Amino acid sequence: MAEPSGRTFSDADEEIMRATYRALREYGYADLTIKRIAAEYGKSTAAIHYHYDTKEELLAAFLDYILNRFVASIREVETTDPEARLTVLLDKLLVAPQENPDLSVALLEMRSQAPYNEAFAERFRQNDEYVRYLVKAVINHGIDEGAFADVDADRVTRSLLTIVDGARTRSVVFDDVGEYERARATAAEYVDATLREGDA
Amino acid sequence: MAEPSGRTFSDADEEIMRATYRALREYGYADLTIKRIAAEYGKSTAAIHYHYDTKEELLAAFLDYILNRFVASIREVETTDPEARLTVLLDKLLVAPQENPDLSVALLEMRSQAPYNEAFAERFRQNDEYVRYLVKAVINHGIDEGAFADVDADRVTRSLLTIVDGARTRSVVFDDVGEYERARATAAEYVDATLREGDA
Repeated sequence: MAEPSGRTFSDADEEIMRATYRALREYGYADLTIKRIAAEYGKSTAAIHYHYDTKEELLAAFLDYILNRFVASIREVETTDPEARLTVLLDKLLVAPQENPDLSVALLEMRSQAPYNEAFAERFRQNDEYVRYLVKAVINHGIDEGAFADVDADRVTRSLLTIVDGARTRSVVFDDVGEYERARATAAEYVDATLREGDA
Repeated sequence: MAEPSGRTFSDADEEIMRATYRALREYGYADLTIKRIAAEYGKSTAAIHYHYDTKEELLAAFLDYILNRFVASIREVETTDPEARLTVLLDKLLVAPQENPDLSVALLEMRSQAPYNEAFAERFRQNDEYVRYLVKAVINHGIDEGAFADVDADRVTRSLLTIVDGARTRSVVFDDVGEYERARATAAEYVDATLREGDA
């Protein structure tokens, strides 16, 4: 499987993405404007429009950007042991967003707009497919090595991502980052029940 | 625990709620107006404003209305066997919305607005607390009767609702009602792993 988005970011793009990140955290999705992103960027709105025609195009790029960041953080993990890798993946997917609760808010707003915005829908689908590919590969590796029970890796992966998405939604709707820690425990229980049943 | 919302609906309220339901399915949350609800209601906007001052007030009432409907559907279940009741509860929470996919879309939009709308946030919290109360009571009943292992019922309940909310979000974002069926299987696996471990 290739890079998740296939998109690379120039230095200017990177700066605009970081400005978008700050603006989304401050204003949320509904009140986000190119003007506000430009203010964070420290340049004119024309300087942003030189790179992105519309706000929607910029936000679609932003979704690629945060997936790329997630994938880069996964690449840093050097262990090839399937159990350790699965633990790290779940830790990263379910870490409580202590420094960016407002980005979670903006992301849920963008998710809720997927039915109306094909560019968003496509990115969320791509992101989900890529993360599923990563989790499934680790589970299949563990099955091959005899570390995990011989399960349907796709099914187990989808269950884990349902738990992840439940935590993401609940933490925003109920304004409670504790949802992540509880979901991490649920995911661990689910992993123990499904993947370890064969080697008790 | 008292009625979830404590709110009762007059015949006129009921009709307005049904009109809101249809309007939400047709237009979604963002494009919903009192005028569109009035068109579904078959009366003037003034007739709606006689009951509800603002759109937000009406929609908060609508969230009470759908919780009342859910609770009423639970009441119909006559079995007192904890295992059978838990199955029914999970079936009802995770039934694929074949006839109202667009209501799920509108509900996710409203959930994403909870951080900005205290009336919505309060309703979603109330709904969640009430459903958790129902699930937890069934699990505790099963523990008391020796049908379930002696688990922390609150923890297991929260895990199950995280799976439910994951399915709700994913079905909208990925436009795939199959998420419900898969999540129902995940919930069943989780129930088997946690509640049945003691009586294998």
